[in-house]
Amino acid sequence: MKQTILVTGGTGFIGSHTTVELIESGYQVVIIDNLSNSKIEVLDGIEKITGVRPAFEQIDLTDYQATENVFKKYPAIEGIIHFAASKAVGESVQKPLLYYRNNIVSLVNLLELMPKYNVKGLIFSSSCTVYGQPKPENLPVTETAPHQKAMSPYGNTKEINEQIIYDYIHSNAPIKSIVLRYFNPIGAHPSALIGELPNGVPNNLIPFVTQTAMGIRKELTVFGNDYNTPDGTCIRDYIYVVDLAKAHVAAMTRVLDMDADRLEYFNIGTGKGNSTKEIIETFERATGVKLNWKFGPRREGDIEKIWGDCTKANTVLGWKAETPLEDVLRSAWKWQEKLRADGVM
Amino acid sequence: MKQTILVTGGTGFIGSHTTVELIESGYQVVIIDNLSNSKIEVLDGIEKITGVRPAFEQIDLTDYQATENVFKKYPAIEGIIHFAASKAVGESVQKPLLYYRNNIVSLVNLLELMPKYNVKGLIFSSSCTVYGQPKPENLPVTETAPHQKAMSPYGNTKEINEQIIYDYIHSNAPIKSIVLRYFNPIGAHPSALIGELPNGVPNNLIPFVTQTAMGIRKELTVFGNDYNTPDGTCIRDYIYVVDLAKAHVAAMTRVLDMDADRLEYFNIGTGKGNSTKEIIETFERATGVKLNWKFGPRREGDIEKIWGDCTKANTVLGWKAETPLEDVLRSAWKWQEKLRADGVM
Repeated sequence: MKQTILVTGGTGFIGSHTTVELIESGYQVVIIDNLSNSKIEVLDGIEKITGVRPAFEQIDLTDYQATENVFKKYPAIEGIIHFAASKAVGESVQKPLLYYRNNIVSLVNLLELMPKYNVKGLIFSSSCTVYGQPKPENLPVTETAPHQKAMSPYGNTKEINEQIIYDYIHSNAPIKSIVLRYFNPIGAHPSALIGELPNGVPNNLIPFVTQTAMGIRKELTVFGNDYNTPDGTCIRDYIYVVDLAKAHVAAMTRVLDMDADRLEYFNIGTGKGNSTKEIIETFERATGVKLNWKFGPRREGDIEKIWGDCTKANTVLGWKAETPLEDVLRSAWKWQEKLRADGVM
Repeated sequence: MKQTILVTGGTGFIGSHTTVELIESGYQVVIIDNLSNSKIEVLDGIEKITGVRPAFEQIDLTDYQATENVFKKYPAIEGIIHFAASKAVGESVQKPLLYYRNNIVSLVNLLELMPKYNVKGLIFSSSCTVYGQPKPENLPVTETAPHQKAMSPYGNTKEINEQIIYDYIHSNAPIKSIVLRYFNPIGAHPSALIGELPNGVPNNLIPFVTQTAMGIRKELTVFGNDYNTPDGTCIRDYIYVVDLAKAHVAAMTRVLDMDADRLEYFNIGTGKGNSTKEIIETFERATGVKLNWKFGPRREGDIEKIWGDCTKANTVLGWKAETPLEDVLRSAWKWQEKLRADGVM
């Protein structure tokens, strides 16, 4: 039996897929989630897939005392994967204080509790948003690329939290950490028992694609066709959520073995970019479903193109994104069909 | 009778001098301080100078409920001057979580409470630390100079808090704010009834100078004599704390009259730089006391030279630093003599 891992935000999109991979790799999992943006039924999905129901505590990580009680209740916790965060870019512009408070205080509480409860390893969910729009000569972007000011309070909290972890470890706190900078996570578990459950109108491309394909949305607007890219639409590095979940398992294994006081950064992506138009065409080809879409004006705050150099994760973590885009998009569609079958949407 | 102003950190160095100037300008003052780095007796000094004892609440601003209770108890509060913060650069490197929690949560709590209690104006204590080491062509540094990554968690919290205020006002929160970026505050009230009370070995030049002059410290080390400055020692913009306090009164008057949703930034300094060596020589000349000092190696994290272009404060706030350096250094020495006479140190 492997170590016990605390997964914060474990009923969320990436958290639930990571919990599945951790359990299937032999780890024990304790989930903390305040269910502000996920449903308790996700635990059923995890249990159906793995045969194991993870321990679950519904608390808010900004509550120091409640968080401490979890560490008291589960003294075996050795590592933390910290997903829990408010994550909607648009909402963060409307409610910045909510984002600064939730995202910063949650992390500070966890960091403060780690030495007290002898928890050694932290995996932190960061984002390629810290790179801003990399200069063309910096594409694919490596972990050492300069950071740029984020375009939103959400993005700022990722940068600030990376800084807090850096400063904490450099104050000789007896912990070690791996920061994973995700590109664009998409898709769903092949079982279609867990997946992405966006609230309201999706901000991200893939849920909008599948909801449009399902007829929930009348049409899909592609924001901008005059970017400096081969087909004029934005380019992103779309990473399959199951591949991403496996990167967390690899990172957790590594962080628990690392020397104290170490801090590492890894890009987690496919290493290549796909344009919005390519995604739409690949989705149509992979699923046989025709999408109703049109071009609209550029959307404020969108960067033109970014994709990651993931060589470091490939070599150091021994991890690689392996799932073909067609399969990934089929998994997203299968999940959407499941949501329809279950009457969720 | 003018408005009621909440001064957080009001028993601290700059807070106490600002409270005096506010009272002398006719404002009512409510002080919040947790007394973590100041003494309750400061209220006696304020009362002796002004004839008025400000209302005082000993609470910690990271405690949302306790902070809210202050707004309930004093519904007349119309403006806030937010000084309260952990402020020791070195300590912030040792205890980064303390700094991120204290400095960020305090501000977020105040911002959240302002609209709820119809408090319109906020003056925020920022620092020239947000500019880092300006390029030579940017000296004196103006308010529009690019920001640079701070060298410490303390400096980071100033930058982060400026960002939080910016994001909050741009989310259409019904508040307005003036951010004052101080250069190096020094000196004490001419009455010697209030002044700076550093804990332990001072980090700042002037308390070290006066303590050395008093014989409390054996000698003063000047860190580095090979900087690219006329005499090889670092250059700073030393601003008299009473002049600085008056800038807060001018800023408070302005912020309460401003349109909602406005945010302004002002450098508060003298507009000129003095080298460490000049400060020592001026102190000796002004007080007639000989200092025992020597050169030592450079200190990590010190920037070479910075002074502020304060034209904007001069013209828009109608404020100007007026006190000659000799008088300022004499006020610091008089305060040190008072501390000795009182048996404090």
